[in-house]
Amino acid sequence: MQSLSTVMENHKNPVEMLRNSKIGMYVYPVVTPEFRNWRVEQEAWRKTAVLFDQSHHMDELIVEGPDAEKFLSHHGVNAFGNFGLNRAKHFVPVTPAGHVIGDHIIFREREDKFILVGRAPVSNWLQFCAAWGKWNVRIKHDPRSTSRPEGERVLRTHYRFQIQGPDAPKVFEKMNGGPVPDIPFFHVDTVSIGSKKVQALRHGMSGAPGLEVWGPYDDKHYIHSTILQAASDAGVDLVQCGSRAYSTNTLESGWIPSPLPGIYTGDGMLADYRDWLGADSYEAAGAIGGSFVSDDIEDYYVNPFELGYGFYIGWKKDDFIGKDALAAMKDAPSNRKKVTFEWNKEDVLKVIASAFEEGTPYKWIDFPQPNYASSTADMVMSGDKMVGMSMFNGYSFNERCMLSLGVVSQDVQEGDVLTLRWGESDDTAKTSAEKHKQAEIRVRVSPTPYAKEARESYADSWRSR
Amino acid sequence: MQSLSTVMENHKNPVEMLRNSKIGMYVYPVVTPEFRNWRVEQEAWRKTAVLFDQSHHMDELIVEGPDAEKFLSHHGVNAFGNFGLNRAKHFVPVTPAGHVIGDHIIFREREDKFILVGRAPVSNWLQFCAAWGKWNVRIKHDPRSTSRPEGERVLRTHYRFQIQGPDAPKVFEKMNGGPVPDIPFFHVDTVSIGSKKVQALRHGMSGAPGLEVWGPYDDKHYIHSTILQAASDAGVDLVQCGSRAYSTNTLESGWIPSPLPGIYTGDGMLADYRDWLGADSYEAAGAIGGSFVSDDIEDYYVNPFELGYGFYIGWKKDDFIGKDALAAMKDAPSNRKKVTFEWNKEDVLKVIASAFEEGTPYKWIDFPQPNYASSTADMVMSGDKMVGMSMFNGYSFNERCMLSLGVVSQDVQEGDVLTLRWGESDDTAKTSAEKHKQAEIRVRVSPTPYAKEARESYADSWRSR
Repeated sequence: MQSLSTVMENHKNPVEMLRNSKIGMYVYPVVTPEFRNWRVEQEAWRKTAVLFDQSHHMDELIVEGPDAEKFLSHHGVNAFGNFGLNRAKHFVPVTPAGHVIGDHIIFREREDKFILVGRAPVSNWLQFCAAWGKWNVRIKHDPRSTSRPEGERVLRTHYRFQIQGPDAPKVFEKMNGGPVPDIPFFHVDTVSIGSKKVQALRHGMSGAPGLEVWGPYDDKHYIHSTILQAASDAGVDLVQCGSRAYSTNTLESGWIPSPLPGIYTGDGMLADYRDWLGADSYEAAGAIGGSFVSDDIEDYYVNPFELGYGFYIGWKKDDFIGKDALAAMKDAPSNRKKVTFEWNKEDVLKVIASAFEEGTPYKWIDFPQPNYASSTADMVMSGDKMVGMSMFNGYSFNERCMLSLGVVSQDVQEGDVLTLRWGESDDTAKTSAEKHKQAEIRVRVSPTPYAKEARESYADSWRSR
Repeated sequence: MQSLSTVMENHKNPVEMLRNSKIGMYVYPVVTPEFRNWRVEQEAWRKTAVLFDQSHHMDELIVEGPDAEKFLSHHGVNAFGNFGLNRAKHFVPVTPAGHVIGDHIIFREREDKFILVGRAPVSNWLQFCAAWGKWNVRIKHDPRSTSRPEGERVLRTHYRFQIQGPDAPKVFEKMNGGPVPDIPFFHVDTVSIGSKKVQALRHGMSGAPGLEVWGPYDDKHYIHSTILQAASDAGVDLVQCGSRAYSTNTLESGWIPSPLPGIYTGDGMLADYRDWLGADSYEAAGAIGGSFVSDDIEDYYVNPFELGYGFYIGWKKDDFIGKDALAAMKDAPSNRKKVTFEWNKEDVLKVIASAFEEGTPYKWIDFPQPNYASSTADMVMSGDKMVGMSMFNGYSFNERCMLSLGVVSQDVQEGDVLTLRWGESDDTAKTSAEKHKQAEIRVRVSPTPYAKEARESYADSWRSR
């Protein structure tokens, strides 16, 4: 049977394999591209209120059984001591070598039942680990919706909606038929939506107060229409956010959704994992896009300290995968730090202008979401020296600029102006990019999260660390 | 019951009604936005070959019965004398006053059965006319797919694919298992696709040789995969075209898809029609976008001469709706003529640059398709005088410029540089536009079709008249 291992054997190295993937861009599927238009949809999460339909773009994993807590605690870096039924966590598994595999939001539904939501690398890894370690857990995997349904019906286990923005509380109160419990950030409680009791996570992806609610997919239409009616009754112009604007909210709030899973190297458990992963898995079929080209796939990996997740590592846990490696990495001067890159306007316009000239243009910057692969790696230079990697790009109508999230060397300071190399130096087989030449775009190193609102309201969260 | 008439009663005039529609942009539904990326998808129809999935964006009307031919001949301007079973026509109905209602492609499937494909205004009009005139025809209406399926299944009566581009003939021969009959432009013949015999229209929307094939929607997956396999076997890189690129092909070939149906004025039959049309119809719910604001809705109408359709009017027919009016309009100096506007690069970049500045920006030009209403009407000025109307906009990667199609006064010449007013002067209720200020964009009057290939290969067709 074809596996990641057998696919890798047919390529010079994993970088060459992933840079030449033909899978196309990473799609936010099923949800309408624009309900109004992506500018006002972005504006709504800052100024009024927005409704995200998150039912389709993430894997969901249900982990239950006598070993569920022990299993998850062993495979995530997070402290689990304070993980009551009313809490959610930002769950981060790493490899034995300490490289980030990905991240999920994890909810505890019962003592012995957890729901995890996020990209495929974590769901794949946990399914493997459960079998590999012979854990007494039962796992149900509901993969993300197909990228191209083309009119066929799409079903999920759960619907998932998020309501965000300064006017969101008025909607909550109306749909709940009275004041909503004061749920602390990343805690869970129950609210009413019409005649249904639903679980609600206090969240804030776009930097303003928000709730994420979920339940059986069968209830989706009822919940959706009840939320819209509640907004209307509350006099709130609740803007439905389409898939074009959706992924750009993270640029203002500072979460990097797409680190490359650090699973292409390492032996033992990781070699077994690569034999286990199918040839059509995210890891085997996904793509790396961007100007950074190294023969060593490990140059694309990140560790939890670099993404700002260091502070919730559960050092007191007896053991968890990657603990020793992380202990050695802690405070290493080679660890980079997460920043926002603010792109220079003139340089962005120079790139766009090339689409109006004869000859090979610069890589088109598609608005508002110019990423052209499941993982992005653009070189960020200080003179001739690479001092950072840009990992997720997008335009913010709220900030009136192009932003990207990434990591830089410790010695880079906020306010430094660096150069991002935009576009690829060679022609890859990627279908998501047209033939282009490389451009240099000046970027100013800026705080993460970039949005003033997010910086202030996430004061206690990982995003601002 | 709510009708267009009752909706109109609640508005100052039809212009005010349509300019403030909240329906959102006119969507090309169901089909994936981008299979690769819209730049290479545009390039493919010029340089290699492209596969359009046209199954979802158009209404389909089946008209059959003893009066079918007579009925259609009476309601279209076209000559019907030469309408054999092997032909298609570009069917254009007008109002009794001679204003264009819309256009459909019409196929004759049997002596007494026709299939029409196009936007809603023509299907609505014909359904009304059949009842109003007590014609002995049976009509089946299959409306276009929903704009926002959100994961629900979408079914049509027929699939419809079009294959275009210089390498298309190699695909036809492979899928047909041998040479394809030499079908003249806009004629129909039968070809094989795998084990199916299907009808094929010789077409060429993007200016290169092409075939449009259709059949029962149940066969869609079989036909789709057989075409892709044939392309692969023929060594042709057949590029599937997504919905973002799709609508822009008309800018290179010169068809204006979206004239405002001239049905908001006139009494008698037209007054009855407005009572018949529902409040949720295209005509009642649709939108006008653009800088042209007149209190008189008739200022937005066009006649067939202006769109270049004059030469196939069936003057020899005893009678057809609008015949007298068209006879009076023929050769009128007030008739405008169809042109392509080539937008000035610096002015386009000035508009884009405003999205990187504080304050109210110019109306965002979304790429490749910036239309923000079902019908577009932008003023085209010579100094202070309006000399034309721009009616359909888009960016062409092939031509490396923004283009629009529209009409200008007879005295405007190719090569003239005029000014297009981009954006609206007031805040309408349209959800498809963000708050913006108006810009002036210089446009050079250019031939229609703009693409050199289209100009040459359509030599005998309406597009080049």
